[in-house]
Amino acid sequence: MTGELVGIGVGPGDPELLTLKALRLLREMEVIVTIASDAGEPVAERIIAPHLPASRRRLTFRAPMHGDASTRARFYDEAAETIAGELGRERRVGVPCLGDPLFYGSFARLMERLAPRFPCSVVPGVTAVQAASAALRLPLAAGRDSVIVLPAMLPEALLAERLAHAETAVILKLGRHLPRLRRLLAGFGRDFEGWIASALGTAEERLAPLQGWEDREAPYMSLLILRRRSTTAP
Amino acid sequence: MTGELVGIGVGPGDPELLTLKALRLLREMEVIVTIASDAGEPVAERIIAPHLPASRRRLTFRAPMHGDASTRARFYDEAAETIAGELGRERRVGVPCLGDPLFYGSFARLMERLAPRFPCSVVPGVTAVQAASAALRLPLAAGRDSVIVLPAMLPEALLAERLAHAETAVILKLGRHLPRLRRLLAGFGRDFEGWIASALGTAEERLAPLQGWEDREAPYMSLLILRRRSTTAP
Repeated sequence: MTGELVGIGVGPGDPELLTLKALRLLREMEVIVTIASDAGEPVAERIIAPHLPASRRRLTFRAPMHGDASTRARFYDEAAETIAGELGRERRVGVPCLGDPLFYGSFARLMERLAPRFPCSVVPGVTAVQAASAALRLPLAAGRDSVIVLPAMLPEALLAERLAHAETAVILKLGRHLPRLRRLLAGFGRDFEGWIASALGTAEERLAPLQGWEDREAPYMSLLILRRRSTTAP
Repeated sequence: MTGELVGIGVGPGDPELLTLKALRLLREMEVIVTIASDAGEPVAERIIAPHLPASRRRLTFRAPMHGDASTRARFYDEAAETIAGELGRERRVGVPCLGDPLFYGSFARLMERLAPRFPCSVVPGVTAVQAASAALRLPLAAGRDSVIVLPAMLPEALLAERLAHAETAVILKLGRHLPRLRRLLAGFGRDFEGWIASALGTAEERLAPLQGWEDREAPYMSLLILRRRSTTAP
C-alpha cells in the first residue's frame, strides 16, 4: 500500500469555479502541497482556504521564478523527494493547481517525477481561457473554427506564423511582452479584434478591448483573445 | 425590469465536474432550457437532473443535426423567440451546456440573438479537452508549447498545415473522420504520439493510444490528443 498523488484543478480565480470533485478531494487529502512562485499571488491558496480545516497537514514549496533550467529541475527533484516521503507513509497528497493541473501548470513537473513510483490522478479544472471567454461573452470557437493557444514569450516570427493559421488565438501571460505583441499585431492590420482579460475572478479583474488597454504592459496573469474578423474558416 | 439569459457550463460528462457556481445558478434559474440534438445523448440532462426539482419550468428544443445552414438558423430564431417570451416575463433562463458554453457550443447561437435585447451572462465550464488530458494523465502544454484545437471535419490540407505548427494538437469530434485522420497522420511519420478519449466521464468512457484503437471509426463525442515527440518548442 502507498499513498496517492492527486493534482487538483481549482479553476482560474473565482472561488465558485471550484468543481464538486475538486472540493471533495481537497477535503479527503491527508496532505495539501502548495507550489507557490517567488513572485505570483497565492490565488490557489485563497480559493481553497475556506474549505480546509486549519489542522490539515500542509507543505509549501517556493518555486524559483528566475533561475535557469537546472535550478528549476533541482527544485522539483527536491520537492518530489519530500512528497515521496509523504506518499511512502500511505498518505494521499493533493496539489491544488490554479486553472487546470496539466495546462501550463507546474504539476506536470511533479507528476513526471512521482508517477513512476506512486499512483497518480488528476482532476481537471476550468482554465483562464474559458473564464476570459465567459467574462467577455466572446465565443471562443464554433463550427469549423480552430483555436490556438500561444505563450506570449514566444519569438515574434513564430507567433506571426502561428497567428496566420487560426480563427481564434489566445496569447497567455502577457506581462512585459505586450508592447512587442502590439507591434506584431500592427502587421496584421485589421485581421483581428482583440480583448485583454487580467486577474480573472479576483478583486483586480480587468477586461478591455486591446485598443482600450492604456497601460504599456499587462500583469503576468493576463491573456489576450484574438478573433479573426471573418469568422468563417476556409 | 427583464429576465436574464445565463449559459451554464456543466462540464464534460462526469457529474462531479460541475462547478459550485453552475450548481448555484442552476438552482436559482426560474426556467431551464435544453438544446438537445436529434442524435446525441442528453449528457447535460443526466448531469443536472439530480440538482433540480421536478417542478422546475423546463423548455426543451431539438436542434436539427442534418439540416442546411438556413434550417439551423430558423431553428435558433424560433428557439430564441420562445426564450424571449420567458425573459420578457422577467424570468431568469438558464441554458445548461455540456463542457463550456462558448467553446464549440450552441449557446453562442442563442446569445447572439438575445444579448442585444436582454442581460446575458456565462458560467465557464471544464472542457472535454481538459478532461481528456486529466484522464490520460497527459500534460497538454508546458512552458513554451502551443496548443491547437481543430475540428475533425476540416479538410485534410488545412489539418496538415495546422498540425505542422503546434507541439500539441487536439482534434475534436472524430466520428467518421477517424480513417481520414489516420491516413493524414501517416504522412507525419513518427512526429506525433496520439491518444483517443471517448465518452469522458460516462459509463462508456474509453481511453486508448491511437494505435491501440481498433475500431475503424470513433464516437462523435471523442477526441484525439496529439503530442509532438520532441516536446521542446523551437
